[in-house]
Amino acid sequence: MTHLISDDFVGQQNARSLAQLQADYDALAGVLQRRGRDIETLTAQAAGFAVALPSWGVGTGGTRFARFPGIGEPRNVFEKIDDCATINQLTRATPGVSLHFPWDRTTDPRALKEIANKHGLYFDSVNSNTFQNAAGQALSYKYGSLTAQDPAVRAQAVAHNIDCVELGNTLGSKGLTVWIGDGANFPGQHNLRGALERYLESMRAIYTALPSDWLMYIEHKLFEPAFYATTIADWGTSFACATELGPKAKCLVDLGHHAPNTNIEMIVARLTQFGKLGGFHFNDSKYGDDDLDSGSINPFQLFLIFNELRDGAVREGENFKPAYMLDQSHNVTDPIESLMSSAVEVQRAYIQAALIDAEALNHHQKNNDALMAAQTLKQAFRTDVSPILAMARVRAGGAADPVACYRASGYRDHKREERPPVAGASGSGIV
Amino acid sequence: MTHLISDDFVGQQNARSLAQLQADYDALAGVLQRRGRDIETLTAQAAGFAVALPSWGVGTGGTRFARFPGIGEPRNVFEKIDDCATINQLTRATPGVSLHFPWDRTTDPRALKEIANKHGLYFDSVNSNTFQNAAGQALSYKYGSLTAQDPAVRAQAVAHNIDCVELGNTLGSKGLTVWIGDGANFPGQHNLRGALERYLESMRAIYTALPSDWLMYIEHKLFEPAFYATTIADWGTSFACATELGPKAKCLVDLGHHAPNTNIEMIVARLTQFGKLGGFHFNDSKYGDDDLDSGSINPFQLFLIFNELRDGAVREGENFKPAYMLDQSHNVTDPIESLMSSAVEVQRAYIQAALIDAEALNHHQKNNDALMAAQTLKQAFRTDVSPILAMARVRAGGAADPVACYRASGYRDHKREERPPVAGASGSGIV
Amino acid sequence: MTHLISDDFVGQQNARSLAQLQADYDALAGVLQRRGRDIETLTAQAAGFAVALPSWGVGTGGTRFARFPGIGEPRNVFEKIDDCATINQLTRATPGVSLHFPWDRTTDPRALKEIANKHGLYFDSVNSNTFQNAAGQALSYKYGSLTAQDPAVRAQAVAHNIDCVELGNTLGSKGLTVWIGDGANFPGQHNLRGALERYLESMRAIYTALPSDWLMYIEHKLFEPAFYATTIADWGTSFACATELGPKAKCLVDLGHHAPNTNIEMIVARLTQFGKLGGFHFNDSKYGDDDLDSGSINPFQLFLIFNELRDGAVREGENFKPAYMLDQSHNVTDPIESLMSSAVEVQRAYIQAALIDAEALNHHQKNNDALMAAQTLKQAFRTDVSPILAMARVRAGGAADPVACYRASGYRDHKREERPPVAGASGSGIV
Amino acid sequence: MTHLISDDFVGQQNARSLAQLQADYDALAGVLQRRGRDIETLTAQAAGFAVALPSWGVGTGGTRFARFPGIGEPRNVFEKIDDCATINQLTRATPGVSLHFPWDRTTDPRALKEIANKHGLYFDSVNSNTFQNAAGQALSYKYGSLTAQDPAVRAQAVAHNIDCVELGNTLGSKGLTVWIGDGANFPGQHNLRGALERYLESMRAIYTALPSDWLMYIEHKLFEPAFYATTIADWGTSFACATELGPKAKCLVDLGHHAPNTNIEMIVARLTQFGKLGGFHFNDSKYGDDDLDSGSINPFQLFLIFNELRDGAVREGENFKPAYMLDQSHNVTDPIESLMSSAVEVQRAYIQAALIDAEALNHHQKNNDALMAAQTLKQAFRTDVSPILAMARVRAGGAADPVACYRASGYRDHKREERPPVAGASGSGIV
Repeated sequence: MTHLISDDFVGQQNARSLAQLQADYDALAGVLQRRGRDIETLTAQAAGFAVALPSWGVGTGGTRFARFPGIGEPRNVFEKIDDCATINQLTRATPGVSLHFPWDRTTDPRALKEIANKHGLYFDSVNSNTFQNAAGQALSYKYGSLTAQDPAVRAQAVAHNIDCVELGNTLGSKGLTVWIGDGANFPGQHNLRGALERYLESMRAIYTALPSDWLMYIEHKLFEPAFYATTIADWGTSFACATELGPKAKCLVDLGHHAPNTNIEMIVARLTQFGKLGGFHFNDSKYGDDDLDSGSINPFQLFLIFNELRDGAVREGENFKPAYMLDQSHNVTDPIESLMSSAVEVQRAYIQAALIDAEALNHHQKNNDALMAAQTLKQAFRTDVSPILAMARVRAGGAADPVACYRASGYRDHKREERPPVAGASGSGIV
Repeated sequence: MTHLISDDFVGQQNARSLAQLQADYDALAGVLQRRGRDIETLTAQAAGFAVALPSWGVGTGGTRFARFPGIGEPRNVFEKIDDCATINQLTRATPGVSLHFPWDRTTDPRALKEIANKHGLYFDSVNSNTFQNAAGQALSYKYGSLTAQDPAVRAQAVAHNIDCVELGNTLGSKGLTVWIGDGANFPGQHNLRGALERYLESMRAIYTALPSDWLMYIEHKLFEPAFYATTIADWGTSFACATELGPKAKCLVDLGHHAPNTNIEMIVARLTQFGKLGGFHFNDSKYGDDDLDSGSINPFQLFLIFNELRDGAVREGENFKPAYMLDQSHNVTDPIESLMSSAVEVQRAYIQAALIDAEALNHHQKNNDALMAAQTLKQAFRTDVSPILAMARVRAGGAADPVACYRASGYRDHKREERPPVAGASGSGIV
Repeated sequence: MTHLISDDFVGQQNARSLAQLQADYDALAGVLQRRGRDIETLTAQAAGFAVALPSWGVGTGGTRFARFPGIGEPRNVFEKIDDCATINQLTRATPGVSLHFPWDRTTDPRALKEIANKHGLYFDSVNSNTFQNAAGQALSYKYGSLTAQDPAVRAQAVAHNIDCVELGNTLGSKGLTVWIGDGANFPGQHNLRGALERYLESMRAIYTALPSDWLMYIEHKLFEPAFYATTIADWGTSFACATELGPKAKCLVDLGHHAPNTNIEMIVARLTQFGKLGGFHFNDSKYGDDDLDSGSINPFQLFLIFNELRDGAVREGENFKPAYMLDQSHNVTDPIESLMSSAVEVQRAYIQAALIDAEALNHHQKNNDALMAAQTLKQAFRTDVSPILAMARVRAGGAADPVACYRASGYRDHKREERPPVAGASGSGIV
Repeated sequence: MTHLISDDFVGQQNARSLAQLQADYDALAGVLQRRGRDIETLTAQAAGFAVALPSWGVGTGGTRFARFPGIGEPRNVFEKIDDCATINQLTRATPGVSLHFPWDRTTDPRALKEIANKHGLYFDSVNSNTFQNAAGQALSYKYGSLTAQDPAVRAQAVAHNIDCVELGNTLGSKGLTVWIGDGANFPGQHNLRGALERYLESMRAIYTALPSDWLMYIEHKLFEPAFYATTIADWGTSFACATELGPKAKCLVDLGHHAPNTNIEMIVARLTQFGKLGGFHFNDSKYGDDDLDSGSINPFQLFLIFNELRDGAVREGENFKPAYMLDQSHNVTDPIESLMSSAVEVQRAYIQAALIDAEALNHHQKNNDALMAAQTLKQAFRTDVSPILAMARVRAGGAADPVACYRASGYRDHKREERPPVAGASGSGIV
C-alpha cells in the first residue's frame, strides 16, 4: 500500500488556521458587501471550478542542458495517479488527469480507470507523442511525424494517434490533444505549404477515427523543437486547420507558445468568436515556452484571459466549455507543490474575473471611458480572493493551505522510500 | 512647367558606365551558364517586374517626436506624380502609384489620371484614411473608426471608404486597402469581440459597394497607434475576417506589422495555401513598424518571401497575382533615392528567387537533406544579380545607376525652387 | 483667475465615502494584524511617497499617425502648473514637477517658481530637448544632436543642455535628464563607435557645467525615433557612459525603453549594485515605448521593481534616493485622470513592496525554497492596499477617490472655457 | 586505425571542378578589378582566417523534447578530434578545437595534445561545465553553481573551473570560457543582487588561478535554463563583471543569447570601444538560443558584425584579436557538414567585410549620406566571394566543395562501422 494523506490529517491541519481564515473571510465578505457583492455566490463558483492535471507534470522537469531529479518521483502511471489524487485531495480543484502516451501506457487500462475513479479522478483529454521516438518504434520522427515526407512515417504517427483515441476511450476521455514538434531548422528544409498539406491529410485520418462525442485539440507553438519554421506555429494556422477539419477540431491555447508581446487574451476572444476555442494549457512564461508556474510571472495576463472567458460564457451560454489544463515544467520545486499552487492561481483568476462588475464595464466601454473601464477590471483583479478559495477548499474537505498541509504530512518523505530511483529511467517524460 | 529629367540625360549618364556594366553582365552570364542558367531569361523576368509606389512615400516621413522636412518636397498630388514618374523613369520598375485619401484628393480626378498616364503611370489600389481626422470632418476618430461605439462614426468611416472606391474607380484603380488604427490602449477599454463584430459589420457595408472586379485588402498590424489591443492585429484575424467577408476580400502583408521573431514567409505560404494572399507593403524593420527601406535590414528575409511567391506562382499559375507596393517612411534620406533603391531591392529578391534551382530544392526536401536544401537557397541568394537589374533598366530606357543619375540631374535642386515650403503644411501625410 | 478645486470641495466629496473607506481600512487592518503587520506604519509610509509629474504629460499625447486633442488643454507652462497642482491636491503624492525645455521656457522663471511653490510644488529634474528642432534654431538635429558629425551642431546641443541646467538652477531643480533620439536608420549610416565617442565628448562638456549638487540622468531607449541603431540603446551603454563621465552621472530607467522580454527589475538590481541607479520614468507598455499608464498592463512587474528598490534601500540606507517620475502619453484619457491614477499605482507598488515579509523571503532564498519565496512576494502583491492609499490621501487633505472627486468638480469644463485652443498650436509637446 | 580522408582523394575531387572554379574566380577577379580591388589580396586574407570548432558540436544535438542520434557519432574526445581534423582538412579554416570538461576529460592529456597537433590542430579556449551534474559529483548544481547559496557548492564549482584551467594549460589553451546556467525560475527565488555578489566572489577565485597569459571569457545569455532571471543575462552585466574582475576578464558574445530585436553589432562596437570584447560563439537563431548554423537565418547580421570587427581592427591594430568559435547544435544534419559550411559562412562574412570600401563609407558617414553609406555596405555584402573562399581552400590543400568531397569520401559510413553506438551513452554532451 502506498502512503496517502488522510482526510483526518487535513482536517487537523485546517483546524489550526480556521479561526484566522474565518476572520479573513468575514473581512472580505464585508468589503464585497460594501461593493454590493455576495461572498457566498463567489465561494460557490470557486467550488465549481476545475482544471486538469498533466500526468507528466508530477515528475521533475528539465531543460536541454540538464534535469535535476527530485525526491521520490513517480515511476509509472499508477504512482502518478497517487500524486494527482493528493493534489486534488488538498486543492479540490483538479479532479481531471490528462495522460500522455506512450509514457502512461498500461496493459490494464480498466484497472487504471478504476483506481483513478476510486480517488475521485477522471481522465481528461489524452495526448499523443510523436515528437520523440518511443522504444521499439519502427520508424524515426527525426524529420517529422504527421508532416513527414515518408508516407510510412506519417502512417505510423496517424496510427499512434488513433491508438491514443482508443486507449482514451477505454479510460473515459473525450478529447485528443495533438501537439507535434514538426518543423524546419533551415530555410529551404521544408516546402512550407507542402508540410501543412501533409499535416492536414494526416489529421483528416485521425479526425475520421474520433468517436462522435470527442473533440480534437490542435495545439500550436511558435518554436522549439523546430527553430526556423514550425508547421503549426500560430493561432492563425491552428484556426485554419481546425476550420478545414470540421466541427470536432478546436484550437488549444498554451500560454507560452506565442511570439513575444502577443496579446493572448485577444486570441482567446477571436477563437471564441469564431467558434474554435478548444481549451488551454495553463502555465506562465517570460521568454518562450518556459513552462513556469501559472500566474507566477504575469498574473494580470491570466486574469485578462479569464475576463475573456467570462465574456465568452455570457455570450455563448452553457455550450461554452473550454478545456482547462495545467502544463508546466517544475525544475526547481516539488512538482506537487507547484501544481497545487498553480491550480489555485488559475482558480484565483477565475474568481477575480467573476468579481468584475460587468455592467459597469459595459457602460464605460459604451462611453469610451477607457480609464474607468480599466479601473473596473483593476478593482476586481486587486481584490484578494484568497479567503474565498481557501474556504471553498475547506468546505469541500480540502486544505486551507495546501502547501503547508502537504509539507506537514511528510508525503514526499514517504515517497522517497516507496519510490527508489530506477537506474537510467526518466519517469517524468519530458526533460 | 515643372522640371523633369530628360531621357537624353539618362542616356548620356548610362553611356559613361555602359562598358563596365557590359563587362560585369558578361562575367555574370558566364557564371550562370556554368550553372546551366541563361542570363537573358532572367533579364527578361526582371524587365517584367513591377512594384507600386506609395504617393505618401515621396515626402519626408517622421516619427511622433519630430519630422525634419526635406528639400523641395511635393505639396500636392500632382507634384507627387512628378516624383513618382521620375522614379519610374530611372528604375522602370514602378509604373503603379497608390494614392491615399483624403491626402491625395483632387477636384479633377480625370486630369490626374490623364497626367499620370502620360507619364506611363497607372493607379494601383487606393488607401482610405480613418486613423486621422480630416479637416472639416464632422465626427472624430479618437475612439475608433470602423469599430467605433458610435454608429454615426462608423457610418462616416464607411462612407469615406466607399468614397475612396468611387474616386479610385474614376482613376482606374482595382483595389481598396483598408488599414485602421482602431484598438485599445487599456485592458477593458474595448470589449475585444464587440470591436471586431462592429468592424465586420462596417466592412460588409464597404464590401457591398466594391465593383465586381475590385479586391479589398485587409491590412493587419500588431500595434501602433493602439498600444494594448489592436483590432486587426495579426494575420489570423485578417484571415478570419477576409473569410467572413467573401472572395473579394484578401489579406495584405506589411513586413513591419508582426510580432518580434515572426516567420513572415510562413504567413505568406499560409495565406497562399488558403487563397487569401492579397499583396504586400514592402519595407524593412528591426523593431516594430519601422518603415525602413526594403532589404536594408534583413535582405535574406525578403528573398525567402519571394521564394514563397515563386512557389505560389508554380502552384497557382496565372491567377496568382499578389499586389506589390512599397510602404516606407524616409526620415533621413531623399525619398526619391530611397524609393528607387528599394524598388531595386525588391526586384533583386524577385530575381534571386527566380535563380533558385527548384528541382534540386525539391529533391533535397524529399530526401530530408536540410543542409543541401538550405545551400540551394543560399546559392541563389548569394548571386549578385545587380548586372541583370541594371541591364534590364538600361534596355528599357532607365538608368544604369538610378541614384547616381538622379543626383547628377539636379532634380532636387530644381524642386527646391519650384516648391517653396508652404507654411504650416505637412505635404507628406504621415509624420 | 483660473479655476482650481477648493479644499472644501474635496472634503465634502470625501465625506460621502468616508464611512465606507473607514470600514474597508479597518477590515484591512485586521487582515494585516493577523499577519503581524501594523496598518498605521504602512499608511505613514504611503504618506511619505512622492513621484514627480512630467509637465508635458498634462497635455494629450499622440502617435506619428495622429493626435486627437483633449478639451481645455494647457497652453503654456503656467496652465500646466495649475493642472499639476490639481493632481497633487487630490493625490498628495506628486509634489514635484519635471519641466521640458524649450517647451516650458518662460521669460520669468522666478515667477514660475514662486507660483509653483505657492501650490506646494517644487521642480524636479529638468529635461533638455535635442530630438526636435526648436523654433528659430540655427542648425537642425535631423542627423543627430550630441552625436552629430557637425561640431557646430554638437556645440548647439551642448549649449542648450547647459542652458537647461541654468534655467533649472534658477527654479530649484537638482538634476538634468538627457534623452537624445540620436541614432541611425540604416546599417552603415553611423560609425557606431564614432557616434558614441562624440556623445561622450558632448556629455563631458555638459557634465563640467553641472553644479556640484546636481546629478545628470542618462536615459537609454532601444529604438524610436532611430530604427536601426540608437546610440544610447540599452542599460549597458548607459552604465558604461555614466561610469566614464563620473559620479554625478547616473542611469535613468524608463520602463518602456527595453527589448522585448527584458527583465527590468534585474536592471534595477544591477544599477543599484554598481552605484549607478539614477531614477525612473514610470509608465507601462506591451510592445515598445507605448507610454501607457503605470501599472495598467503589467502591475506585477511594477511591484517587482519596487521589491528591488526596497532591497536597495535596505542595503544602501539613507543615501539611496532614486528619482521617481511619471512619463506617459495620454492619448484616449483625460491626462489629469491618467496621471492621478498612475501616481496611485506607483504608490501602490511601493506599499505592496513594503508589505513583503523580508525576513521570510530571505529565509526561503537561503533554503532554495523557490516556491515559498515566490509565495512570499505574491502574498504582498495580492494584498489590496487601496484603503491605505486612500486613507493617506484623506488624512493629508487629498481625495479619497481622486478621479471621482475631479470629475465631480467640473475642473475640465472650466478649462474648456478658460483655455480655448490656439490655432496650429500643439501645447502638449510630444505628439 | 580510424578511417580518415586522404589528401589524394581531396585532390582528385578538386580536379573535377577546378576548371569551373578557375573560371568563376577569373570572372570575379574582373568584377573586383573594375571596382579597383585585387582578388589575390582577398584570397590571402581568406587563407589567414580561422574559427575554432566546439568539440561537442561534432555530435548530434537535441532539444529538451528529444535527441535523434546520427550515424557513427564520436564516443570520446579522440574520435571528436578525428572529426575536427576532417573538418579542418577540407575547410582549412578550423585549426582550433575548443574542449568542454568534464565531457572531454582524458586521463592522458599529453597524448591528446600530441594527436591533435599531428592533425594540425591546436586547443582553443576550454569550457567549464557547472550547468550539469557530472557523474560522481559530490554536490548538485540544481540550485546554482558559482552563485549557489551553499558555499560548498560554490567551492566545488570554483575548483572545477580551476581544474579546467590546469587541464587546458597542459593542452596549450590560453583561455577559459565560463558560461553558467545559474538563475531563477520564480520572482523571489533569488535575491538578484546577492546572486551576482556570490558570482563575483567565485569568479575572483578563478581569476586568481588564471596563468598570466590567459584570458577569461564571460558568456552571457538571456534565458534558458533559467526562465525568469539569469544571473549573467546581458552584455551590461557581463561588462560590469569583466570590469570588476580585471584586464584578463573579457566578454564573449554568442549570437543567440540576446533579447529579441537586439542590435548585436552594436554590442560588438561597445565592447570593443571599452576594451572588453573577448570573442564570439558563432551560430544563428530566429527565436532564442536556437544554435542554428552560422549565417543560415540572417547572413546580413553576420556581415554587419564583421563590419564592426573590421572597424575594430583598424582602430585597435595588432592587439585586437577576439576569439572566434562556432557553437551550434546540429539536430537534423550531419554535424561535420554543418560545421564545415558554417565555418565557410563565417569566413565569407569576414571577406565580405574586407571588401567594404572603408574610405567611401567614412566619406558618406561624414556627409550624413545614409543612403550611400548603406549602399557601400550592401555592395560588399552582395558580392559572391565563394570563388575566393574555394580558391583559398584549394591552394591550402582543402576541398573546393567541402560537403561534396566529404560525401564522396564515405567518411560517415566508415564511422558507422567504427563507432557502434554505446548503450545509454550520450557522447555528444548537450542534448
